[in-house]
Amino acid sequence: MNKGGVFIVAGPSGSGKDTLFKVLFKKRPDIKFSISSITRAMRVGEVEGEKYNFITREKFEDMLKNDELLEYNVYIGNYYGTPKAPVVAAIEKGEDILIEVDVNGAKSIREKMPEAVSIFIMPPSYKELKRRLSGRGTESEEVIEKRMHESLSEIARATEFDYIVVNDNINEAVDDIIEIIQSSRLMLKRQKNLIDGVLNNVES
Amino acid sequence: MNKGGVFIVAGPSGSGKDTLFKVLFKKRPDIKFSISSITRAMRVGEVEGEKYNFITREKFEDMLKNDELLEYNVYIGNYYGTPKAPVVAAIEKGEDILIEVDVNGAKSIREKMPEAVSIFIMPPSYKELKRRLSGRGTESEEVIEKRMHESLSEIARATEFDYIVVNDNINEAVDDIIEIIQSSRLMLKRQKNLIDGVLNNVES
Repeated sequence: MNKGGVFIVAGPSGSGKDTLFKVLFKKRPDIKFSISSITRAMRVGEVEGEKYNFITREKFEDMLKNDELLEYNVYIGNYYGTPKAPVVAAIEKGEDILIEVDVNGAKSIREKMPEAVSIFIMPPSYKELKRRLSGRGTESEEVIEKRMHESLSEIARATEFDYIVVNDNINEAVDDIIEIIQSSRLMLKRQKNLIDGVLNNVES
Repeated sequence: MNKGGVFIVAGPSGSGKDTLFKVLFKKRPDIKFSISSITRAMRVGEVEGEKYNFITREKFEDMLKNDELLEYNVYIGNYYGTPKAPVVAAIEKGEDILIEVDVNGAKSIREKMPEAVSIFIMPPSYKELKRRLSGRGTESEEVIEKRMHESLSEIARATEFDYIVVNDNINEAVDDIIEIIQSSRLMLKRQKNLIDGVLNNVES
């Protein structure tokens, strides 16, 4: 059996990543989602094990010490990270798994798993990005400028990714991601066993 | 507008490549097929400009001199080659073009066009390859062994390709190729303009 694939997905605020994931996992429940381990307190509406595993700082630091994370980050005094074990378990079972990260996290995972396929979600234009980041028009120009600056810095690093998906129409963007996942199953690096199988007349 | 993509497709005798192409181009007439220039005489049933352009040896040697071929080969005293101009014209117009070649031709094109995506068509198994190459059972064991040897030598070089498509079920194999073509439109190398467009607030 072929191994599953690891898909690293990043996109700035305003890329519409969250809605896109909702539609994607509804359409393709066979694709696994990597649950992050985080040390901040649970917020209202959050569910343990849905998007995050809420763990203690001690537990997180143990994971760090034991090299059990593919990437991690510190944000306002709390740790956020991607545990390695569930990702490895999924691909060994032949399942495709998607990891949501920022551009730095993507870089760390690529270094540890060079076979991972990376996808950057882009807003369709500067104008549309600004419109999305302006929210309901209640924000100051300064806040919007700051958000624009952060998103544009991430977009400048889109060149580090294998694929770019423009999120203009949500259903088209979801289909694009599904196509990337499907076609990556045909990549040479996923199919070396198969070539050996035919050459040596053994079932793969 | 984004440029089109170049898809180099190779596969040994017994891979079922010819039938696969017929179904592919019927399903997706928007995908162009690169017409080879050859110097051998036209055979019964062949049509000028369909799969081949039948040209004189002098014309072919001029093309060689002027570096107008992406790859070429000599087979039983005749030249076979892929002219560069129609491939460049297609991708400039934003069209995807497929070039059928052998493993050596694929290597030459990859060197001249590193952005090309290469696909190897595989028979599903050693057994099935042997069955396909045995034809109607009228061939000697020696002829079959020779064919097997040639096909297996090509399969051993499948590792030089980006993608492997197993041709077990013809419709699935055609859909695999279409998925590779679709997803390659999302590859970073095809979309650099787009990133610059969003960063600099210009329409791409």
